[in-house]
Amino acid sequence: MTQATARQATAGRGRLTPEREAELYEHVIALVREHGYDSLTMDAVAARAHVSKATLYRQWREGKPELVASAMRHTKPLPYEGIDTGSLRGDLFALADAGTDLEDDTVFMSAVMHAVQTNEDLGAALRAMLVEPMRRVLEQVIDRAVERGEVRAGAAAGRFLAHALVGALPARKILDDTFADPEYMKAYVDAVVLPALLNS
Amino acid sequence: MTQATARQATAGRGRLTPEREAELYEHVIALVREHGYDSLTMDAVAARAHVSKATLYRQWREGKPELVASAMRHTKPLPYEGIDTGSLRGDLFALADAGTDLEDDTVFMSAVMHAVQTNEDLGAALRAMLVEPMRRVLEQVIDRAVERGEVRAGAAAGRFLAHALVGALPARKILDDTFADPEYMKAYVDAVVLPALLNS
Repeated sequence: MTQATARQATAGRGRLTPEREAELYEHVIALVREHGYDSLTMDAVAARAHVSKATLYRQWREGKPELVASAMRHTKPLPYEGIDTGSLRGDLFALADAGTDLEDDTVFMSAVMHAVQTNEDLGAALRAMLVEPMRRVLEQVIDRAVERGEVRAGAAAGRFLAHALVGALPARKILDDTFADPEYMKAYVDAVVLPALLNS
Repeated sequence: MTQATARQATAGRGRLTPEREAELYEHVIALVREHGYDSLTMDAVAARAHVSKATLYRQWREGKPELVASAMRHTKPLPYEGIDTGSLRGDLFALADAGTDLEDDTVFMSAVMHAVQTNEDLGAALRAMLVEPMRRVLEQVIDRAVERGEVRAGAAAGRFLAHALVGALPARKILDDTFADPEYMKAYVDAVVLPALLNS
């Protein structure tokens, strides 16, 4: 679709409806994943989402960083809530299985990682989207393991559980040139995360 | 310096001397760190390094990916060789102290992480530059710990030592919005890496 056609398709619409906005955000996230944040242009977003650039800039005055941050904030949280299997290993394995899009997550993280270092709003949006929900769930997993007596209260590894798990995604790609999958994450949990939690 | 001046500065030189080449590589690595791989242009390299684009393309016919991969391959290895303190904890702490540019490394990794997923040559160069030297050193650290009887031969965590350490750099930035430093790495070693290695 050309620029001109894209403009016509939304001419006079003003702000996007919530449905169109949700659709737009999905396109933005997909485009970031494909091209990386730095190479993404508002033209590409307009063309892919069939929205005029005027509409984009009316709603996201600061342009790309604001639009991408909004898209990240509106992404539905990972399906981690409600995981409670009755054991620490069971919970961590369920987490590995719940993240069905480990590859998508890794690519998205890679695509924004450089940009979040210079743009505070993007960094805050990434934390709201991916980091805080995961951290909350992991805290609950640890709290329950402590209540069950599996993990010592205040175990040092608890503080680094999110680091050890989140870091395993880019590390797998960097070190082995392949994406983390549930099997890899479970092997990593058994080899590193569980022994650390149970012995620190 | 304008394009025209840059061109004159190397007009007729043909290939760069090894000294100029080494200098150029340093500029390339710095530019990747500053702008991210995707946003880096050959124009920016030419201007910063005072080299004509003709010279760049004569020596790196495939342009940016080949030039950046070359720059990565020529980067001097991390100062990890020769670390042998007599204990596993001592070796891992020495590694944390040796990587004096953890921030630079994290930024560089972030800057190329998306690109290495689509460009195989870049991925191979990153592994040659950062990953393989580190993996070799870590294997020696583990082998010595096994010889000393600190770690069980074939301990599962040994296979994931590099993942747990390399991943901690981007994880620190993503989760805490700050860069890993030697203190953080040592706390992480004590809380996660050592308990895992000694109990798996």
